Amino acid sequence: MKILIMHGPNLGLLGTREPEVYGSQTLEDINQLLQTDSEALGLELETFQSDIEGELVAKIGEARGEVAGIVLNPAAYTHTSVAIRDAISASELPVVEVHLSNTHARESFRHQSLTAPVCVGQIMGFGVKSYQLGLKALVDHLEDVL
Amino acid sequence: MKILIMHGPNLGLLGTREPEVYGSQTLEDINQLLQTDSEALGLELETFQSDIEGELVAKIGEARGEVAGIVLNPAAYTHTSVAIRDAISASELPVVEVHLSNTHARESFRHQSLTAPVCVGQIMGFGVKSYQLGLKALVDHLEDVL
Amino acid sequence: MKILIMHGPNLGLLGTREPEVYGSQTLEDINQLLQTDSEALGLELETFQSDIEGELVAKIGEARGEVAGIVLNPAAYTHTSVAIRDAISASELPVVEVHLSNTHARESFRHQSLTAPVCVGQIMGFGVKSYQLGLKALVDHLEDVL
Amino acid sequence: MKILIMHGPNLGLLGTREPEVYGSQTLEDINQLLQTDSEALGLELETFQSDIEGELVAKIGEARGEVAGIVLNPAAYTHTSVAIRDAISASELPVVEVHLSNTHARESFRHQSLTAPVCVGQIMGFGVKSYQLGLKALVDHLEDVL
Amino acid sequence: MKILIMHGPNLGLLGTREPEVYGSQTLEDINQLLQTDSEALGLELETFQSDIEGELVAKIGEARGEVAGIVLNPAAYTHTSVAIRDAISASELPVVEVHLSNTHARESFRHQSLTAPVCVGQIMGFGVKSYQLGLKALVDHLEDVL
Amino acid sequence: MKILIMHGPNLGLLGTREPEVYGSQTLEDINQLLQTDSEALGLELETFQSDIEGELVAKIGEARGEVAGIVLNPAAYTHTSVAIRDAISASELPVVEVHLSNTHARESFRHQSLTAPVCVGQIMGFGVKSYQLGLKALVDHLEDVL
Amino acid sequence: MKILIMHGPNLGLLGTREPEVYGSQTLEDINQLLQTDSEALGLELETFQSDIEGELVAKIGEARGEVAGIVLNPAAYTHTSVAIRDAISASELPVVEVHLSNTHARESFRHQSLTAPVCVGQIMGFGVKSYQLGLKALVDHLEDVL
Amino acid sequence: MKILIMHGPNLGLLGTREPEVYGSQTLEDINQLLQTDSEALGLELETFQSDIEGELVAKIGEARGEVAGIVLNPAAYTHTSVAIRDAISASELPVVEVHLSNTHARESFRHQSLTAPVCVGQIMGFGVKSYQLGLKALVDHLEDVL
Amino acid sequence: MKILIMHGPNLGLLGTREPEVYGSQTLEDINQLLQTDSEALGLELETFQSDIEGELVAKIGEARGEVAGIVLNPAAYTHTSVAIRDAISASELPVVEVHLSNTHARESFRHQSLTAPVCVGQIMGFGVKSYQLGLKALVDHLEDVL
Amino acid sequence: MKILIMHGPNLGLLGTREPEVYGSQTLEDINQLLQTDSEALGLELETFQSDIEGELVAKIGEARGEVAGIVLNPAAYTHTSVAIRDAISASELPVVEVHLSNTHARESFRHQSLTAPVCVGQIMGFGVKSYQLGLKALVDHLEDVL
Amino acid sequence: MKILIMHGPNLGLLGTREPEVYGSQTLEDINQLLQTDSEALGLELETFQSDIEGELVAKIGEARGEVAGIVLNPAAYTHTSVAIRDAISASELPVVEVHLSNTHARESFRHQSLTAPVCVGQIMGFGVKSYQLGLKALVDHLEDVL
Amino acid sequence: MKILIMHGPNLGLLGTREPEVYGSQTLEDINQLLQTDSEALGLELETFQSDIEGELVAKIGEARGEVAGIVLNPAAYTHTSVAIRDAISASELPVVEVHLSNTHARESFRHQSLTAPVCVGQIMGFGVKSYQLGLKALVDHLEDVL
Repeated sequence: MKILIMHGPNLGLLGTREPEVYGSQTLEDINQLLQTDSEALGLELETFQSDIEGELVAKIGEARGEVAGIVLNPAAYTHTSVAIRDAISASELPVVEVHLSNTHARESFRHQSLTAPVCVGQIMGFGVKSYQLGLKALVDHLEDVL
Repeated sequence: MKILIMHGPNLGLLGTREPEVYGSQTLEDINQLLQTDSEALGLELETFQSDIEGELVAKIGEARGEVAGIVLNPAAYTHTSVAIRDAISASELPVVEVHLSNTHARESFRHQSLTAPVCVGQIMGFGVKSYQLGLKALVDHLEDVL
Repeated sequence: MKILIMHGPNLGLLGTREPEVYGSQTLEDINQLLQTDSEALGLELETFQSDIEGELVAKIGEARGEVAGIVLNPAAYTHTSVAIRDAISASELPVVEVHLSNTHARESFRHQSLTAPVCVGQIMGFGVKSYQLGLKALVDHLEDVL
Repeated sequence: MKILIMHGPNLGLLGTREPEVYGSQTLEDINQLLQTDSEALGLELETFQSDIEGELVAKIGEARGEVAGIVLNPAAYTHTSVAIRDAISASELPVVEVHLSNTHARESFRHQSLTAPVCVGQIMGFGVKSYQLGLKALVDHLEDVL
Repeated sequence: MKILIMHGPNLGLLGTREPEVYGSQTLEDINQLLQTDSEALGLELETFQSDIEGELVAKIGEARGEVAGIVLNPAAYTHTSVAIRDAISASELPVVEVHLSNTHARESFRHQSLTAPVCVGQIMGFGVKSYQLGLKALVDHLEDVL
Repeated sequence: MKILIMHGPNLGLLGTREPEVYGSQTLEDINQLLQTDSEALGLELETFQSDIEGELVAKIGEARGEVAGIVLNPAAYTHTSVAIRDAISASELPVVEVHLSNTHARESFRHQSLTAPVCVGQIMGFGVKSYQLGLKALVDHLEDVL
Repeated sequence: MKILIMHGPNLGLLGTREPEVYGSQTLEDINQLLQTDSEALGLELETFQSDIEGELVAKIGEARGEVAGIVLNPAAYTHTSVAIRDAISASELPVVEVHLSNTHARESFRHQSLTAPVCVGQIMGFGVKSYQLGLKALVDHLEDVL
Repeated sequence: MKILIMHGPNLGLLGTREPEVYGSQTLEDINQLLQTDSEALGLELETFQSDIEGELVAKIGEARGEVAGIVLNPAAYTHTSVAIRDAISASELPVVEVHLSNTHARESFRHQSLTAPVCVGQIMGFGVKSYQLGLKALVDHLEDVL
Repeated sequence: MKILIMHGPNLGLLGTREPEVYGSQTLEDINQLLQTDSEALGLELETFQSDIEGELVAKIGEARGEVAGIVLNPAAYTHTSVAIRDAISASELPVVEVHLSNTHARESFRHQSLTAPVCVGQIMGFGVKSYQLGLKALVDHLEDVL
Repeated sequence: MKILIMHGPNLGLLGTREPEVYGSQTLEDINQLLQTDSEALGLELETFQSDIEGELVAKIGEARGEVAGIVLNPAAYTHTSVAIRDAISASELPVVEVHLSNTHARESFRHQSLTAPVCVGQIMGFGVKSYQLGLKALVDHLEDVL
Repeated sequence: MKILIMHGPNLGLLGTREPEVYGSQTLEDINQLLQTDSEALGLELETFQSDIEGELVAKIGEARGEVAGIVLNPAAYTHTSVAIRDAISASELPVVEVHLSNTHARESFRHQSLTAPVCVGQIMGFGVKSYQLGLKALVDHLEDVL
Repeated sequence: MKILIMHGPNLGLLGTREPEVYGSQTLEDINQLLQTDSEALGLELETFQSDIEGELVAKIGEARGEVAGIVLNPAAYTHTSVAIRDAISASELPVVEVHLSNTHARESFRHQSLTAPVCVGQIMGFGVKSYQLGLKALVDHLEDVL
C-alpha cells in the first residue's frame, strides 16, 4: 500500500521560516521521519512538495489509482484554493488534511478551510507530529474501509 | 479565423472525475468535437489545458493578436482568480465563459464569477454542449462586431 | 415537440428600451427568429410575455404536460422571485434561463439568480442570440434525456 | 363569523407539485376539508388563491370589514413581499400565517418571513393540517379578543 | 404637457389604513388635490393606481411618448422591485419618487430604495404634500431641461 | 401512547413574567390544560421543565424509546442551542416546536431558530394555545406516520 | 416665524465645485433665492454654513427657541454624523433634510442617512430647488402642526 | 501522569445516535479503548461526560493541578461556548480538541470553533480514532514541553 | 434592603486564573469586600456563583420579591445567553452588569453584550472595584426610584 | 492631583435635551457636583465641553503632563471618532469613559464604542452618577498604579 | 510652484506620541525636512495642521487656485471622513495621501481609506520619509500632467 | 547591496495592456529605469517576473540571504494570495509593495491587500514612478535599520 505525502507552498523553507511558529525541522527531516514510520507500518511512501497550486492539483489528479490515500498539508492554499478542493473530490481518494500550527489561533482568514470539507478529517497544531498522526489516521481509515 | 479553447484546472481528468456531475467524455473527446464543429464553421482551432492559474494567465496574454477570441472554462479559478480576470481585460479579446455544470446549483461559493464581468457572456449547465454553444456564440459575436 | 418561450417584465419594450444595452430588435422580431429556428428543428413554438410575476408563475404551472421544456428570460424577476423559482421546481420541466445582457457586468444585485439553481443551465450576454442558443441547448438537452 | 382562507403562488398546483414535499391533496381537497371544519365551528368560509402578489394585496385590502380574520399561506411571497406585509398591517385584521412544509428545514432564504411579524402567529410543517390548525388558532384568538 | 401620477400597492386604502402613519385623506382626495394643482400649472394629469407590480411596470412602459414625466409612489415595491427600476430606466422619462411617510424612520428594510437611483429625485415624509411637492419638482425639472 | 411536554428556561415563572407578552397562566395551569386535552385524546402525558440547557439535552436523550413524540418550547435556547438541536436529531423522535409569543415580532436575534430545522414543525404566537395546537399537531403527525 | 437654513461642509464652494453634479449657482445665490421665497411667504430667514461638524451641532442646539424649524443640507455629514443626529433630536425642532444631488444614484456609502430618521422628511435630487421645496415643505408642516 | 478525557453534550447517546455519522460504539466502549491505550502509555486516565456546559466548565477548573492535560470533545458547545473557552484559558492546561465527525463537512455553523483557538491542536473526522489520536498527540506534546 | 451579588462561569477560579487579566483576589475576597461595603451602606447581602447558565437563570427568577436589586457579572454568558437576558427582563428587578476586565479591549466577540440592554447600566474594567462601584450604583439607583 | 472632566457634543444642552433620557440637570449642575466630590477627594478639577471633535482631540493632547487622568463622555463621537481614540492612545493617560444613558439599550449603532478599547474602563446608564462613579473609579485606578 | 502639506488630527503631538509607532521627530522637524526638500526642488511650501475635520475641509477648499497640489496625511480622518473626500474631489487638485505607519498592519478599521479613491496615489509605512516620497511623487505627477 | 524587483501576473504585457490605466512603458523599460536608478544608488539589481503565484512564492523563499530587500508588485495576487503573504513573512526580508494604479479607485475587491500587512509599506498610483519611489523607500529603510 502506497501513501502520498503532499506539502504545499512555503514548506520547502521549513526549519528556517518563523521557527517559533513552525519548529526547526527541515522538510527533509519530516519526510525522513515519515519514511521511518511508513516502514514500521509496512507502507510505501511518496513525498511531493510544490509552491504552485496547479502542480498540487495535477499531482492529486495523477495520484488516483497510484496511491491508497494522501496526507496533505495545503498550507496557504487551504484558505484560497477551490482548485485543490476540486482535485480532492475528483480523485475520490481519502485525504487527511494536516497543519503544523493551530490555524484557529492565528488570523481569522485562516479559520476557514476550503479543502477540509472534502477530506476524511483534519489534524492541526502538533508540529511535525501532525503529519505523523495524519499518516496513522489515514492508515487506520484505510483499514476500516477496506 | 482562429479560436482558442482553454480548459482550467482538473479538466484533464474529465471522463473519470465525478461523471454524474461532469459526464463521461474525456478532454480529448471534447476537443475532437469542437474540432469537428470548427471545421464546419471554417475556423482554425487551438486547445490548451492547464491546472496552473499563471499558465492560463500567460496563455491569454500570448493569445492577443494570435486568435480572434477565446472560449474559456476557468473551472475552479472562476471563483478565485483576479489574475485571469485581469488577463482577459488586458487581452482585449472577446471571451466566452463556459461551464460543464450549472454552478448556481452547487455550493454558494460557486455562485460568484470573478471572470464573467469581463467576458462577453456566459454559458453553463449543458455539459460538453456548453463548449459547443460557447464556440457558436463566440463566432456569432465576432461576425456581429466585424 | 412543443417548446415555450417566456419573456419577463419590460421585454415588451425591446427595440426601444436602452438599445445600447439590449439591441434594436423588437420582441416580435425575436419571436419570429425563434419561430424560424423552431421550424428548422421541427419544433412547435409558443411564446408568452408578461410583466406580472404571478402570470409567469401561472403560465409555468399550466405548461406542465403541455410543453417539453421552457426557454425563460425572467429579466428583473431573476433576482427577486422565489415564486418563479418554485414554479419551475413544481413544473418538473427542463428550463433554460437566458439573458440578453451579461448580468455579471452590471450592478451587483444582478449577479445573483434565484431561478438559475432550478434550471438546467443559463446563457447570457449574447443579445437575441442568447434565446437562440437557449433554444438549441434545450432541444439538445431534451434529446439527451429522452 | 366569516373567515378568509388565502393561498399564495403555485398552490393551485397542489397535489401535483413535488408531492414528497407538499403531499398529494389538491387545493380543492384542502378547501373542502376547511369547509367541513368551518361548518363544525359554525363559521362561514371564503377561499381565495392567486399567483399574483398584487391580487393577494388587493384581496386583503377588501377583506377589511368583510371577514373576522384570515388564514394566509403566502408561499413564496413570505420571503419577498413587503406589499403583502403592508396589506396585513393596513387591514388591521388578525392573520395567521401557515405553511405546508417546515421552511426552516429548507434553503436559508426561506428562514426569514417578511409577513410573520405582522401576523398573530405562525404554523408550519404539518401539511394540510397546518391550515386546519391555523383555522382553529384563528377562531380561538378571535374568541379571546372578542 | 401631461404628467402621470402613479400610486403603488395598498394606496387604494388611503384614509382608512394606519391613519396615524399615512393621514386621513383618500386616494381620490389626493388625486383631486393634484388635479387642482395641475390646472394652476397648466398641466394635463393622468392618475393610476395598482397593487400589481407588473401593471405598474406596464404602465410606465406605455407612458413613454405619452407623458412628459411621472410622479411615482412605489410604496412597498420601492424596496423589492428591480422590475419597476428597469421600467423607469427603459422609459427614459424623468420620474420623481415620493413617499407619504419618512421611510428612514421606519424598519431598516425600508431604508433602501431600488427605484430611487434611476429617478431624478426623491421626496418623503410630508404626507399628501409629498405628492404636491413632487409634482412641482417634476415640472421645474422639465422646465430646466426643455 | 405517551407524549412529553418540555418547557425551557424561565418558563417556571409563567403567569408572573411580563404577562402582557406571555399571559397570566402559570406553568401548572398549562400542564393541567394539556393533561385534560391528553385524556380526551387517550394519551399519557409527561411534563418537564428546566432552566438548564444540558438537562433539556439529557431529557430528550432519555425520551428515546420512552415517548412517541415531544412538544418542546425551547424558549431562549431556541436561538442559541446547538446542543438541543443535536439532541433532537439524535433522538429520532418527532418534535413540535412551540412558542407562546410570535418571535418574529420581537428582537431580530429571535427570528432565527437553531432547533426548528430538525423539528416536524413550528407553532408560535397563540399563548398557551400554541402548546395545545402543538399537542394536536403532534398526535396527527404520529397517526399519519404510524 | 423664523426659519434657519443650514449648509454643511464643502457647500461654501458651490458654483465652483463639480458643477456637472451640483450646478453653477453659488451659496450666496441660493441664500438669495431662499430670501426671496421667504419674503413671499412672510418668513424671516437666517442662513448658516460651516464645514465643521461641531459648529453645525452647536448651531442646531442654539436654534431651539429661536426658530420655528430648520432646512438642513448636512452634505457629507449625512452619512457619518451621529452628533448632528443627536442635535436634531435634542432640539425638538422640525428639520427637513435636503440634498442638491440624488445621493441614491452615487456611491453606496451615500445611500444611508444617519440624520434622516430624526427629520420630518427628506428632499433630494433637484439642485437648488431641493432647498426651495424643502422650505415650502417645512412651512406647510409648521402650518399643519400649529 | 494523569490525563482527563472529557465528553460534551449528547455523547452519552453514542452508539445509538445517528450511527451513520458517529459510528456504533458506545461511550463506554470508547472509554475502554482509551483505558487500554493509556495503560500501554503508562498513563492514569479519568473520564468525564456531561450534557451541561457549566459542569464541563467546572470540571476543567478543578482539573488544574490534578491532571497533566485534557482530551476534550466539546461537541455542540464547540460552536457556542465562550465559557468553556474561558475555562480552558484559565486552567493553563494543554487541551487537545477532538471530534468524531468532520465538522467542516457539515452545516456552516459547525465550521467555527470557539474553543480551538485556546487549545494546543484539533483532530477531527476519524470517529473513535479521533480520541485515540488526540490522546497520543497530547502525550507527545507533554513530553515535548516537559 | 437586600442585594444579590451574582458571579457567572469561571469566577470561582478568581485569584488563580490569568491573574494578569483578572487580578489576584479570590472570589471569597471579593465577597468579603462587598460584605464590608454593604454593612457600611446598611444593606443585607447575598452572594451566588454558578458555572451553569440555567442555575443563574433560576436564581434570578427566585430573586424576584426577595431582593431589591442585583449586581451581576455574567462573565462568558454575557455574550451568548439569551436565557439570562430573559431572566433579567422577567424578574423586573434592577440589575447592574459588571466586568472585571474591559471587554472592549479583548476579542471582538466580547464587544457585544446580550444582557446589558435589559440592565440599568454597565461598569467594566476596574477589577474588583467594578463590583464595588456596581453595588454603589445600584443602591443610588434604588434610592432614586424609591 | 488634577483630573480633567470632558463632555462631548450636545452635552451643553443637558437639562433641556430629551430629559426622559438624560435627566434634568444642566451641565453646570454636573460640573458642580463633581467639584464637590473632588474637594472631598482632595483633587483639583478641570472641566471642558466641546461640540467639535477636533477640539476634544486637541484638549486630550494638551492634557498630557497637565492632569493625572480623564473622565470622558464622548457622547455621539463614541461611535464615530477614530481621532479621539488616537488622542487617548497618544496621551498615555488613564481615561474612564462614561455615558449618561445605557447605550446598549438604544439603537444598534450605539452598541459599538471606538474609544472604549483604549480606555481603562467604561461606566454607563446611571445618569449624572455615571460621572461621579467614573471620577471615583479613576482615582482608585490612579492610587493602584501609583 | 507652490505645494501644500497638510497634517490631520493628533499629528501636532508627533515625537511624543507612541514613538515606537510614529518615530521621534516632531511636526516641526518634518516640516523643516520638507522645506529643505522643496528648496532643492525649487518649490514654495505651505504647511498646515489641524485636529478639526472641518478646518481641513475648509483649507482644501481654499487651496484651489492657490497651490499646484497637496500632500495630505488625513490620519484618523482617513477612515471616517466623507467631508474631506468631498473636499478633495471639489478642489480638483492632485492630492497624494501619506501615512507614517503601515495602516494595513494595524486594526482592521484602518484598512479602508475613504480619501484614497479620490487621490492620485497613496504612500504609507515609511515614517517621515512617507511625506518626502509623497512630495517627490506629487512633483513628478505635476510635471507629467503639465 | 542587492535588491530584487518582482513583478506579478500580467505585468509582462505592460505597454500593451490597458495603457490608459497602466501607461505605455514596457516591463523592459521599467527594469531599465530601475537599473539606472540602482547604479546611481550604488545597488546591484535583480528583476523577476512571473504569472505563476507559486513561482513568486519560491523566488521570495530563495531571496533570503541573497538580497537585502524586495520591491514587489503582486498585481492581481495582492488580493487573493495568502501564499505570497506567507512567503514574505517567512523570508524575514523587508518588502515594499508597489502598484502602478491606485487600487482604491478601482473595484472594491481591489481595496484589500493580503500582502501589505507583512510589508514595510505600500506605494500606489504613480505608474512606473511607484517602482522608483519604492526602490528609494526600501533603500532608505535599509539604511535606517542597518
